[in-house]
Amino acid sequence: TSLTHIDAEGTARMVDVGAKAETQRLAIASGRIRMSAEALAAIRAGDAPKGDVLGTARIAGIMAAKRTGDLIPMCHPLAIDAVNLDFAFEENAVRAVATVSLTGRTGVEMEAITAVTIALVTIYDMAKALDKAMVIEDVRLIEKRGGKSGHWRAATA
Amino acid sequence: TSLTHIDAEGTARMVDVGAKAETQRLAIASGRIRMSAEALAAIRAGDAPKGDVLGTARIAGIMAAKRTGDLIPMCHPLAIDAVNLDFAFEENAVRAVATVSLTGRTGVEMEAITAVTIALVTIYDMAKALDKAMVIEDVRLIEKRGGKSGHWRAATA
Amino acid sequence: TSLTHIDAEGTARMVDVGAKAETQRLAIASGRIRMSAEALAAIRAGDAPKGDVLGTARIAGIMAAKRTGDLIPMCHPLAIDAVNLDFAFEENAVRAVATVSLTGRTGVEMEAITAVTIALVTIYDMAKALDKAMVIEDVRLIEKRGGKSGHWRAATA
Amino acid sequence: TSLTHIDAEGTARMVDVGAKAETQRLAIASGRIRMSAEALAAIRAGDAPKGDVLGTARIAGIMAAKRTGDLIPMCHPLAIDAVNLDFAFEENAVRAVATVSLTGRTGVEMEAITAVTIALVTIYDMAKALDKAMVIEDVRLIEKRGGKSGHWRAATA
Amino acid sequence: TSLTHIDAEGTARMVDVGAKAETQRLAIASGRIRMSAEALAAIRAGDAPKGDVLGTARIAGIMAAKRTGDLIPMCHPLAIDAVNLDFAFEENAVRAVATVSLTGRTGVEMEAITAVTIALVTIYDMAKALDKAMVIEDVRLIEKRGGKSGHWRAATA
Amino acid sequence: TSLTHIDAEGTARMVDVGAKAETQRLAIASGRIRMSAEALAAIRAGDAPKGDVLGTARIAGIMAAKRTGDLIPMCHPLAIDAVNLDFAFEENAVRAVATVSLTGRTGVEMEAITAVTIALVTIYDMAKALDKAMVIEDVRLIEKRGGKSGHWRAATA
Repeated sequence: TSLTHIDAEGTARMVDVGAKAETQRLAIASGRIRMSAEALAAIRAGDAPKGDVLGTARIAGIMAAKRTGDLIPMCHPLAIDAVNLDFAFEENAVRAVATVSLTGRTGVEMEAITAVTIALVTIYDMAKALDKAMVIEDVRLIEKRGGKSGHWRAATA
Repeated sequence: TSLTHIDAEGTARMVDVGAKAETQRLAIASGRIRMSAEALAAIRAGDAPKGDVLGTARIAGIMAAKRTGDLIPMCHPLAIDAVNLDFAFEENAVRAVATVSLTGRTGVEMEAITAVTIALVTIYDMAKALDKAMVIEDVRLIEKRGGKSGHWRAATA
Repeated sequence: TSLTHIDAEGTARMVDVGAKAETQRLAIASGRIRMSAEALAAIRAGDAPKGDVLGTARIAGIMAAKRTGDLIPMCHPLAIDAVNLDFAFEENAVRAVATVSLTGRTGVEMEAITAVTIALVTIYDMAKALDKAMVIEDVRLIEKRGGKSGHWRAATA
Repeated sequence: TSLTHIDAEGTARMVDVGAKAETQRLAIASGRIRMSAEALAAIRAGDAPKGDVLGTARIAGIMAAKRTGDLIPMCHPLAIDAVNLDFAFEENAVRAVATVSLTGRTGVEMEAITAVTIALVTIYDMAKALDKAMVIEDVRLIEKRGGKSGHWRAATA
Repeated sequence: TSLTHIDAEGTARMVDVGAKAETQRLAIASGRIRMSAEALAAIRAGDAPKGDVLGTARIAGIMAAKRTGDLIPMCHPLAIDAVNLDFAFEENAVRAVATVSLTGRTGVEMEAITAVTIALVTIYDMAKALDKAMVIEDVRLIEKRGGKSGHWRAATA
Repeated sequence: TSLTHIDAEGTARMVDVGAKAETQRLAIASGRIRMSAEALAAIRAGDAPKGDVLGTARIAGIMAAKRTGDLIPMCHPLAIDAVNLDFAFEENAVRAVATVSLTGRTGVEMEAITAVTIALVTIYDMAKALDKAMVIEDVRLIEKRGGKSGHWRAATA
């Protein structure tokens, strides 16, 4: 058969992590959802139309972190040690911070960013009857430890 | 048995859509990921370390839209008619725009926001070797048609 | 080719619902988890080792209901209209009651039973550090409306 | 901001099925796995190392059909009416035939092909200790009914 | 920005297993579904309306065990070594017993309980045309080995 | 209670891999989809009706490999180190070759076969508007390294 190899330059690929050492890994990501005073007040008061906003967002974010390898095509499936999600009220926004840890061969920054993102999207869902114009923003990696590249910390904005 | 009902005030709940009419629904959401000139140039040139960034992000976003009801706790599972994702280069960012349509009983704004968000998180994954400090921002609903609440359009920023 | 048909008698099969009419369907299921006084007191006080037990169980049950067709091999995938989960404290147990509704071609009793069951398993997980001997019991269908078979109600125990 | 639209020519997209009519749809797909006489005899005798080969393959195929929209990126999520899988012994192979039906806006040929394929891959898994050189082949659409394109039937090989 | 930390007391959290040692873990769980003599006879005779009841329930339970971390919000995703499910006929019930093993940092009791539970819910689904009043009961952990807490065994009822 | 054990002979079971050593594992699988000259030309030219055929198939195959334990009932869930998919044009077909690697207790041949299979089914989906009669064939394991059984290589056809 006449066989022509398709140039694989530029095609999507997973990084092979087989040669990396198992080390303690940690990643922290953060982001926020900006909203109207009315929506923020309803969330603070536990009074939003679909019920417990932050409790629901926390669980959605933790579950999404565990599914990162199933959502992000080139991510490895990882058996993470822990995920935690905290929320804080800012002047016109709710901030979410996710911390993920792993004993493994690759970093967990994607798990932390996925947890923050899905938590914020869940807040949108739970409060959208009060404010459709909410904006998700400032989603970024804050810190990363472990692995060959060592400790990385975001420059302060 | 001595039975005490737990006050269900404030607990999470799904909205019952059974009484709503099946209508044509459309939602458009948008968002962007801000990055270094170097990362942006690599994506434009099709030269990023993990391969085809936008092609991979497009598929990740479309697949995530179909899984919205499985990711966002109080969302309904929906058999959407179509999802499309477009990308545009801005000065220091890649913008993603998702359009979702449905013939059904509830809106598809959560599907559009989920598609945009997971596409942007995938771009982060594909390009993070070049820039760990990328920021996801300006994720918002742009337009929504169909259903009782009719046509909604975001105020221009 | 010599072809021998394998007798399909007794093999698993999905019921074909294509000829059924789309009607309003409702199902209510109930079940409980029996536990020590100590574990029950901790859940009541919001003081269990892994945090908010009933809030987490409610979300787990609702999400599982949406995934019933993916868990139970011969169940149809259904785009349910609503799922709700309520909890009540009994003398030595927590009771869960799930209500599921659908406009569709088949009943939602499996969704209601799956929601109750996964909610109770989640309660076990959240409180197992206090009592490993908890028992899930009395999981049953309470009521079913809609469809050809009409209204069904469990005999009182 | 200077905005450059990325040419969307050639990028992956879902077909919009919103304007299509809901009709009765049916698709039949078939395929086979060729294997050694020893492996075939063990399957016939119910004597394979991992147990009930065809029963397990049937369930895997049915469950995969329900998940087609989650596996194949541009497929629509569909609430299928029924999936059935039958097996037949051929001279040196097991043949699988899947029949899928739907009342809906798009065809179910991908569901039928996915069911056949995953059933055959499961047979490989259940019998690979006896024969690693098994070959999956002749996987094709046999028949398709319903929708605008009407009745299609494969030419006999 | 004025930032107010939300009190994290009582919020759901995953236990961090990163500091735990990898050991051999085993868990056995059991449960039963009580039913009418007619339904039980049909299952024994392999004569239930939707086909092979116990074969389908076994596979559903095994697959659910592998998905425990995706169903139970605060459970860790685990790469289990094995799951097995056995069934026994009791006077008016079918009993299911699941055994799960792992080489890892946390116990597998939730995987065993999830396997038993979903197997019993599947039996309900496969036989509900014969008896809608079936009751799932006596679902409990029987035994647990490995890890810091060592060997635990349920007191005999 | 009168208890009759159900004979477990012949029932489906997972192999227990707990006693196996963690070694470097590799598997390569291959398969092809035969099609009309017109469909092949459209794929080569990047001109198929649903867009980028091979890019979409590559991502679908990689994502399916990560989900193998969730699709194939008796497969273990595995945290694979890497999956890669390459395509080649043959005279009247597209060939897919998947390479999967793992540091673990069991082989990855099922992951490689699943990746190839779902990639080929995706090609069918992306090009079916041009040719409904495409045939998936010659799906087989090519090579397997690591573990007790050592190096295995398919005999040349």
